[in-house]
Amino acid sequence: MDWIGILTEASKQVKQTIMPLVGTALAQETYGRGAGGDPKKHIDLQAERALVKTLLNHEISFTLISEESGIKTYGEHPTCYVTTDPIDGTTNTLRGLPFACSSIAISKIPRLDAIEVAAVADIFHEVVYVAQKNLGTYRNQERVESTQITELANVVIGIDFNTWKVAELTKKLNRILLHTKHIRHLGANALELCYVADGTIDAFIDIRGKLRTTDIAAAALIIEEAGARISTLRNTPLTNILSPTETVAFIATGNPQLHQIMLKCLKQV
Amino acid sequence: MDWIGILTEASKQVKQTIMPLVGTALAQETYGRGAGGDPKKHIDLQAERALVKTLLNHEISFTLISEESGIKTYGEHPTCYVTTDPIDGTTNTLRGLPFACSSIAISKIPRLDAIEVAAVADIFHEVVYVAQKNLGTYRNQERVESTQITELANVVIGIDFNTWKVAELTKKLNRILLHTKHIRHLGANALELCYVADGTIDAFIDIRGKLRTTDIAAAALIIEEAGARISTLRNTPLTNILSPTETVAFIATGNPQLHQIMLKCLKQV
Repeated sequence: MDWIGILTEASKQVKQTIMPLVGTALAQETYGRGAGGDPKKHIDLQAERALVKTLLNHEISFTLISEESGIKTYGEHPTCYVTTDPIDGTTNTLRGLPFACSSIAISKIPRLDAIEVAAVADIFHEVVYVAQKNLGTYRNQERVESTQITELANVVIGIDFNTWKVAELTKKLNRILLHTKHIRHLGANALELCYVADGTIDAFIDIRGKLRTTDIAAAALIIEEAGARISTLRNTPLTNILSPTETVAFIATGNPQLHQIMLKCLKQV
Repeated sequence: MDWIGILTEASKQVKQTIMPLVGTALAQETYGRGAGGDPKKHIDLQAERALVKTLLNHEISFTLISEESGIKTYGEHPTCYVTTDPIDGTTNTLRGLPFACSSIAISKIPRLDAIEVAAVADIFHEVVYVAQKNLGTYRNQERVESTQITELANVVIGIDFNTWKVAELTKKLNRILLHTKHIRHLGANALELCYVADGTIDAFIDIRGKLRTTDIAAAALIIEEAGARISTLRNTPLTNILSPTETVAFIATGNPQLHQIMLKCLKQV
């Protein structure tokens, strides 16, 4: 099965479906809450439908694990799990802020460390990241690697600050924040993880424990296949179950040395 | 004088000059420190040169106020001040993180509240913001207005967290952070201010007191002409001198009501 081809096609279909909706009132219409707990928006549902349709066109039978529709089986003999956040960065997309992505991950078992193929498509730019287990990460057909930067003063680091417990969060991150100069938060965590993979930034941290495994399933493989590191705060692999209600806290860095330095900073609070 | 035409042309020249440099080692070469105190990078200097050249081609005599070269007069009888940050978001630009802009402001006297014409060009996207005193703000020839959103729970807000005193900063911002869900920091403050002007986001705060007036000279007019508000933390107009060493702390919001709400939050710490 040409999974990379199929996921690339699915990503394109998702983009084509949602771009005409950007800036419309229809896009924002909500239909109750999605499986992940956020309001189910018209634009998210349309994105999911475009993805499912592409897979069915290829006669794939699968179990969908989606932030929107929850867990749902398509076809009679599902052969794999398809974990997706059809739009990561829905708020950005609705506002026209050009940072958002669509994320798809394929696995035989529904666990974060079992992803075999992954694609993350940048919705606003002509960029698709793909990865296959043991075969590397590619950005628009070009193999990418993460950075070897290790000095905190030089790192560009993404941090998700979106929690009401931001004072507590800042306390935990204090040692890192004290030594860094380039903090970003773009509002689409899967894409920011891809930026760690291709060396656009050097690290991304989300220690809120709020992010769903569906959000990072694809990006986790993309990170690892690019030579970057992603782990729990205790430096163990992410082995969480893939489910729209399972959440995860993690640190991702361009290289093992930076990973150790940042984990040490987090411990010394 | 067709200032809007000249500034739009200058922005295009700056973009054309720097895009081929993105990703090259040459772009990062430094030549001592610029007037604003940051290392003077090859890419910044080239951007400034492209701007100056365009103005001289139009036989304009002016005093340049630049983050790179400081204050410098061109021609025999300068008729105006040209305040610029040739590249706002140099780190993003060098990394290929698609969020950076070039900023130019024209005034008769070197003060933030005296800007008469302004242009901010998005370096990575085909977007130019222009404004003229009392004549409104335009994004690619289309008039734009800021949002009327006032509920903190719904606002998308940019905050610059890049300071070593981040714990102190978070304490000051605590009431705002407690009630918002969509915090961003993209790494190019002038462009984030333009996003407030056109309603992409609802507010942008930089209370570090580190940002230079050269960075926001153009954006300040673009904000005001779009019906948005920008002020000091005491709700007074920004009347600072335009100089690469003069810094400013401010709050910018889409509408007067949100401005009052956010100022109140800042006071109640």
